[in-house]
Amino acid sequence: MLLDETPLFEPALLHGLDWSNNSVSFSPPISPSSPGEGLILRPLCTADFNRGFFRVLSQLTTTGDVTPEQFIKKFEHMKMAGDYYVIVVEDRQLGQIVATATLITEHKFIHSCAKRGRVEEVVVTDACRGKQLGKLLVATLILLSKKLDCYKITLECAPKNVAFYEKFGYKASDETYMQCRFFD
Amino acid sequence: MLLDETPLFEPALLHGLDWSNNSVSFSPPISPSSPGEGLILRPLCTADFNRGFFRVLSQLTTTGDVTPEQFIKKFEHMKMAGDYYVIVVEDRQLGQIVATATLITEHKFIHSCAKRGRVEEVVVTDACRGKQLGKLLVATLILLSKKLDCYKITLECAPKNVAFYEKFGYKASDETYMQCRFFD
Repeated sequence: MLLDETPLFEPALLHGLDWSNNSVSFSPPISPSSPGEGLILRPLCTADFNRGFFRVLSQLTTTGDVTPEQFIKKFEHMKMAGDYYVIVVEDRQLGQIVATATLITEHKFIHSCAKRGRVEEVVVTDACRGKQLGKLLVATLILLSKKLDCYKITLECAPKNVAFYEKFGYKASDETYMQCRFFD
Repeated sequence: MLLDETPLFEPALLHGLDWSNNSVSFSPPISPSSPGEGLILRPLCTADFNRGFFRVLSQLTTTGDVTPEQFIKKFEHMKMAGDYYVIVVEDRQLGQIVATATLITEHKFIHSCAKRGRVEEVVVTDACRGKQLGKLLVATLILLSKKLDCYKITLECAPKNVAFYEKFGYKASDETYMQCRFFD
């Protein structure tokens, strides 16, 4: 098994997003195809293991010590399932990942066998704050979930981030989010 | 494409659950292998399309008009992905599904490439309320998620159901559940 540039999902899905449908404003204007000077937004690939992908995730939560083999195995499962859209922003000069977010499409029998989207693991490295990258990732995943025919997209976030997500059209739900944790 | 008895996932997974680890009490005592007089608890199969599976779901939310072909296509995707555990309770005399619940395992890179569990579409038909079936389904999915090595299991529920889920060890999270709905 080798780390390579094979994308987790078809990059054309990102290039084909109609950014004119984006509902939040960016100043200066950036987009998935022009995320900022020296940056590129694209699907995750296994070579990102050596570009600090886990160092970025570790700014969000514990990542543990993951071997390339474990990473590739998980990546291959996600690719096989076809419902995982992990996007990354790479700083091309540094050859380092600086931000990431994930859309997962969850399949249903309800609502005419619909799909819903779930947003997970949104994180921007400390060094790249203030470049609107979090906003760009979240806006991109909304358009992507629409393109993938999701009937809704959901997430769980810290109360301090509610106002941020409201800008995109997210609303705090009447439902209660509950969890039962077995281990950390 | 034919509707048949092929299970969505390996039935041995349910039979192999160690029910002595269940933490809620049942009176009279029931379990996944003995869910009650004339009842059987098992994985979903496509033949359940003709056993009122969608009529049960329609007590939860809108299901739309789904053809056997659409149902089989969705079923096959779930089976291929390997992360969908839709369980049903069938009344063997009537040949009808009377309850269902779904566990989905969601793959992560965080927490040493962990999995989390998500509980969705828990519903018991009106005619079968009072038989502890909802409790049985939820308790079964907790044990199943542990067996599948999930680090946690989560769900979203109406505020009136919070106390019900707390019995199983679920806790209302500090996080806010948000959604952005594109259509119903």
